[in-house]
Amino acid sequence: MSLNSFGHLFRVSTWGESHGPAIGAAIDGCPPGVPLEAAMLQHWLDRRRPGTSKYTTQRREADQVEILSGVFEGVTTGTPIQLMIRNTDARAKDYGDIADKFRPGHADITYWLKYGVRDYRGGGRSSARETAMRVAAGGVAREVIKSLIPGLRIKGYMVQMGPHRIDRSNFDWDQIEMNPFWTPDASAAANWAVYLDALRKSGNSVGAVIEVVARGAPPGLGAPVYAKLDTELAAACMSINAVKGVEIGEGMDAATLTGEANADEISMGPDGPVFNSNHAGGILGGISTGQDIVLRFAVKPTSSILTPRKTITKSGQETEIITKGRHDPCVGIRAVPVGEAMVACVILDHMLLHRGQIGTNRGKIG
Amino acid sequence: MSLNSFGHLFRVSTWGESHGPAIGAAIDGCPPGVPLEAAMLQHWLDRRRPGTSKYTTQRREADQVEILSGVFEGVTTGTPIQLMIRNTDARAKDYGDIADKFRPGHADITYWLKYGVRDYRGGGRSSARETAMRVAAGGVAREVIKSLIPGLRIKGYMVQMGPHRIDRSNFDWDQIEMNPFWTPDASAAANWAVYLDALRKSGNSVGAVIEVVARGAPPGLGAPVYAKLDTELAAACMSINAVKGVEIGEGMDAATLTGEANADEISMGPDGPVFNSNHAGGILGGISTGQDIVLRFAVKPTSSILTPRKTITKSGQETEIITKGRHDPCVGIRAVPVGEAMVACVILDHMLLHRGQIGTNRGKIG
Amino acid sequence: MSLNSFGHLFRVSTWGESHGPAIGAAIDGCPPGVPLEAAMLQHWLDRRRPGTSKYTTQRREADQVEILSGVFEGVTTGTPIQLMIRNTDARAKDYGDIADKFRPGHADITYWLKYGVRDYRGGGRSSARETAMRVAAGGVAREVIKSLIPGLRIKGYMVQMGPHRIDRSNFDWDQIEMNPFWTPDASAAANWAVYLDALRKSGNSVGAVIEVVARGAPPGLGAPVYAKLDTELAAACMSINAVKGVEIGEGMDAATLTGEANADEISMGPDGPVFNSNHAGGILGGISTGQDIVLRFAVKPTSSILTPRKTITKSGQETEIITKGRHDPCVGIRAVPVGEAMVACVILDHMLLHRGQIGTNRGKIG
Amino acid sequence: MSLNSFGHLFRVSTWGESHGPAIGAAIDGCPPGVPLEAAMLQHWLDRRRPGTSKYTTQRREADQVEILSGVFEGVTTGTPIQLMIRNTDARAKDYGDIADKFRPGHADITYWLKYGVRDYRGGGRSSARETAMRVAAGGVAREVIKSLIPGLRIKGYMVQMGPHRIDRSNFDWDQIEMNPFWTPDASAAANWAVYLDALRKSGNSVGAVIEVVARGAPPGLGAPVYAKLDTELAAACMSINAVKGVEIGEGMDAATLTGEANADEISMGPDGPVFNSNHAGGILGGISTGQDIVLRFAVKPTSSILTPRKTITKSGQETEIITKGRHDPCVGIRAVPVGEAMVACVILDHMLLHRGQIGTNRGKIG
Repeated sequence: MSLNSFGHLFRVSTWGESHGPAIGAAIDGCPPGVPLEAAMLQHWLDRRRPGTSKYTTQRREADQVEILSGVFEGVTTGTPIQLMIRNTDARAKDYGDIADKFRPGHADITYWLKYGVRDYRGGGRSSARETAMRVAAGGVAREVIKSLIPGLRIKGYMVQMGPHRIDRSNFDWDQIEMNPFWTPDASAAANWAVYLDALRKSGNSVGAVIEVVARGAPPGLGAPVYAKLDTELAAACMSINAVKGVEIGEGMDAATLTGEANADEISMGPDGPVFNSNHAGGILGGISTGQDIVLRFAVKPTSSILTPRKTITKSGQETEIITKGRHDPCVGIRAVPVGEAMVACVILDHMLLHRGQIGTNRGKIG
Repeated sequence: MSLNSFGHLFRVSTWGESHGPAIGAAIDGCPPGVPLEAAMLQHWLDRRRPGTSKYTTQRREADQVEILSGVFEGVTTGTPIQLMIRNTDARAKDYGDIADKFRPGHADITYWLKYGVRDYRGGGRSSARETAMRVAAGGVAREVIKSLIPGLRIKGYMVQMGPHRIDRSNFDWDQIEMNPFWTPDASAAANWAVYLDALRKSGNSVGAVIEVVARGAPPGLGAPVYAKLDTELAAACMSINAVKGVEIGEGMDAATLTGEANADEISMGPDGPVFNSNHAGGILGGISTGQDIVLRFAVKPTSSILTPRKTITKSGQETEIITKGRHDPCVGIRAVPVGEAMVACVILDHMLLHRGQIGTNRGKIG
Repeated sequence: MSLNSFGHLFRVSTWGESHGPAIGAAIDGCPPGVPLEAAMLQHWLDRRRPGTSKYTTQRREADQVEILSGVFEGVTTGTPIQLMIRNTDARAKDYGDIADKFRPGHADITYWLKYGVRDYRGGGRSSARETAMRVAAGGVAREVIKSLIPGLRIKGYMVQMGPHRIDRSNFDWDQIEMNPFWTPDASAAANWAVYLDALRKSGNSVGAVIEVVARGAPPGLGAPVYAKLDTELAAACMSINAVKGVEIGEGMDAATLTGEANADEISMGPDGPVFNSNHAGGILGGISTGQDIVLRFAVKPTSSILTPRKTITKSGQETEIITKGRHDPCVGIRAVPVGEAMVACVILDHMLLHRGQIGTNRGKIG
Repeated sequence: MSLNSFGHLFRVSTWGESHGPAIGAAIDGCPPGVPLEAAMLQHWLDRRRPGTSKYTTQRREADQVEILSGVFEGVTTGTPIQLMIRNTDARAKDYGDIADKFRPGHADITYWLKYGVRDYRGGGRSSARETAMRVAAGGVAREVIKSLIPGLRIKGYMVQMGPHRIDRSNFDWDQIEMNPFWTPDASAAANWAVYLDALRKSGNSVGAVIEVVARGAPPGLGAPVYAKLDTELAAACMSINAVKGVEIGEGMDAATLTGEANADEISMGPDGPVFNSNHAGGILGGISTGQDIVLRFAVKPTSSILTPRKTITKSGQETEIITKGRHDPCVGIRAVPVGEAMVACVILDHMLLHRGQIGTNRGKIG
């Protein structure tokens, strides 16, 4: 039972602090014989990397990942894969004020109370920097998925920034890669650019909602009752820094529906059952239906802002704080590749679990 | 790694099907020396029991819990506590139609595809009946909490039925126990009674949102990064039947806030830090702040309804289905004690984890 | 993390006390579609059942196992299988003396010190009665093995009673079922009968060594480094009551060998590699070779004996104790089916793990 | 569930191959506030380091450990501690022959069959080099133990080399540090030096038995039934490379004893119960008694020897092999610090588990 690990058979354990010498992840249980090299992971890391636009933190990190074990002559060996990224742009001087004061809305105070010691430089272990390793692990998962679930496509995108939601009638998959917000709505992207730039200049920040879709997952993934696929996706997403809400399918709005409206009717297609709608988000009773798996999560605004906020010091003195570090005006942007990575890891893990217990799906229709 | 278990040190594993001979739960890791008898658990089970009002299923189950192990001369021994409830009112005849057809919105089809066999009687393992054992386990957790975290109070209530939300200005804690919906808003209770009765008579059902508050949890519970307190609460609630969304604090609405609005300012009170607001829902960086822990989850409408819905049979024929069993028009009502129970188990589990790794909080302020 | 569970994917959790209302086991992760009924388990339970000869405890327990969940219409459903045996012949009066005194060599004193409460009736949770549930779980494992590893045969037998070892030149597989000691050496069986009868009459007891062989396990089961097949077999056997030593292959005697003598040479047979000897006991680097898996474990003598032994009371008074209950003169006899069951569970668990991570063996020779 | 991890609350996960860029270990769950620096771990690593005498492999590794996370300003933070050692003296050329042939008695063939790929350089993941990280992790455990169980002393030593056992009447604790075999019997050390030198020169190797004693462990550590302290110690030791047998207390010889001889009588001392003997090895019913915890494990001879042995190639051709690498004539020597480290980790883990579930021992005597 490791508190810094997730997954059952494809198990990811991360370590490292924002401004320590390095961060890393170990992946245990990866199937052998999968072609893997650092460049494959770099592709995904580059999407999460800070400093790529004015809408993300200006910290400059190359985020060059090294594979230290578990790969031999270009393929996975089935033994633990250790990934590591050296921290390079760690300006400790930026964080002097934080050593003594607790940032409101930040883990500073809870880490202090619990542990009596904390690496305050850049948030230490509580920093969103940890999510780089999730993205790297997700990159490994994607390589395994290529052979194990070849039809699977996982795509994340932003559907809301602050109070501004996308217009679903503008939804265009190709648009996602064409704007700095990973949003499928070109019009929203244009409006958000103006909105966020103003917030950024005022030293403020804002939250966002990310949606992730997994298309092509086979039916049968998941398990009753506490390892339901939706439970594990919810846990995976809620564990991402700053996430405060998670939804599957209709999510919180499921409360507003009647049973008649909510039940996705079933008909028979040429290749098996077809669902006439997808309120369920692709999961029934904790097990995938074969439809798109759809989830959303809400990312709160960065708590490190330039506006002075009331707080206290370690000695209990009341004071104010301004966080001068290089922070994300909307950390939700960089949460998009993180969300995708978590979904990739969870689905692969359940594919392995499924293969372990069941082999292949045993029920036939028709 | 058990798929039907949750918790680390206070570990709950449930078993049993809706219409099998019995359902049960084992609790491993319970501290010894805690006074425990079946009547203490019965108190909580009676709140979840079906058939107590016209707003819940008319299935009649005494839900009498037996303690089969782990208690000697009235106190827990530290060894596994096995709880069991015999199923008594299991009318198998009600479910003949379901043996061959898949109910839209239900786990019927996914269980069939995955396992190739399913106990279709009442949903078998996927039935909400399983939640009775969560409530029983929560009852055990509450007895341990009495000595370990004496000030802790956990209370759940309904804040939304269908599209109808409570008016927070009517919030009255005492009202919760005075209406069949466990809602703190008397006016909402009156309106919902009319609304739900009409839905019930038309054979339809509706969703709901439940909120649970834990007051008096000490600061310091939780852990980075994948065993965050909010992660584990989210997983615990998402694992409840029919839940499709989970929120901590501001939840999905955290996306709409700016960093300035979201950061709960800190001042110094007579007994330590005081937060001037609680957007965080009592958890920062995955660790409790000492404020109220606030979460919400959305329960979808029961999928077993009297309106005919299109579906298919095991042999792939298109057909319609009406589910004639005795079902809940708003299963969210009975989810209230279930949500409370899950929160009790998670908080106790983290209290034990905290004691194991840390002892007591090590950081002092002032 | 449950302290009363073992296994990864085929996970067994037991509960219950010797003289409580019942004992039981939950099996989570069992593959679906396996024919299973109580009578199949009863076969194995009857081999471990007390009171079958004068060489085992005279306690009379029918040990009738019930299947309470996880089986529907005669086949496993993939959900938790709950097994239960009601305790019937629980004479609490026999144990009055033990409530206050600690039996030397028994868990009485350690349970008391740790928990401050213990079910002293028959040893409570520490009783060898718990092993009945291991045998039942092993029976489930054997039914799964029939389809998953059809060639596998698991056989346990006694190779030493007290200082008296079998003569390996007398080894006869058919003899094992023909004497009350499950020994393959008919001559040893005759001698042990006299030896043990004398010990029994004098109220004394004695230890034994059990050997278990698994023939027909495929190569490739196991994993580096902490889930080695030999590690898990050792843990499984060491967890059996009264076991104090475990050996794989040459075991402790491996220390006496040179590298030249120990290395099992390999040649090429018609169906793949053939090993010219089996010092390794069928496991190299934690992974099965395809040879016989051979292990042994030593069972200490029952500590409940009629000879007076010095001890103390809960209030710290020095005294003597005679344990008058109905105990086994050589509890090693009944450990034979228990050892077989543990081996069956571990091998099946690793078969599922292997299928989960690898699918089927990926390396070919020739 | 990680296959390369052990421990519950103090959880150690290792990674890395013998001739890869580095090896490492992550420790999750370490209590915060413990002074820790690399030099403290180096002390223990230097004892296991190869090339320190002619009786160990002549591979030259500095084994300089780095702490990459989890320590801030000289104390542990409670977050994962990542330890890493760069491999420096990795002569890949030595291993050309092994790429194609399987060494008898080695994991070569099983890794190949299972995974279809293996890092053959120096045994890759199956190399004893992995044990360096156990020693490093044990070093961390020892620093925590200093504050948590201040009286605990853990000491390992060799009691048998090949067929030659020590004479217990020569036992001298101080002698252990004074000879290259870590044996308490000076006379045995002298004899073994001659014996092993001859074996070494002939290119042969030999096995050994190591004993580890933990003095000063409090009573109450451990748990029924599958997390017994002896179970976990057995698993920890059996997971060490080349170990084939594990014993607690009397071990395999417990089989030879009568109940009368085996039961350690109890009397009352000034500070609580006193046991008049210690056949149990300090553990009853899986829980520590407060006596010395005594265990032994047998290490088989190194399988990499200079004598030609029959084997086959990957293409199935019969051939012979001589392993020319730099190997240990008695790898048991370097297993001494490894065994100590595993015992330290297991005892600390159970101390944390005990504190989590129980707090402090609840039972009083007298």
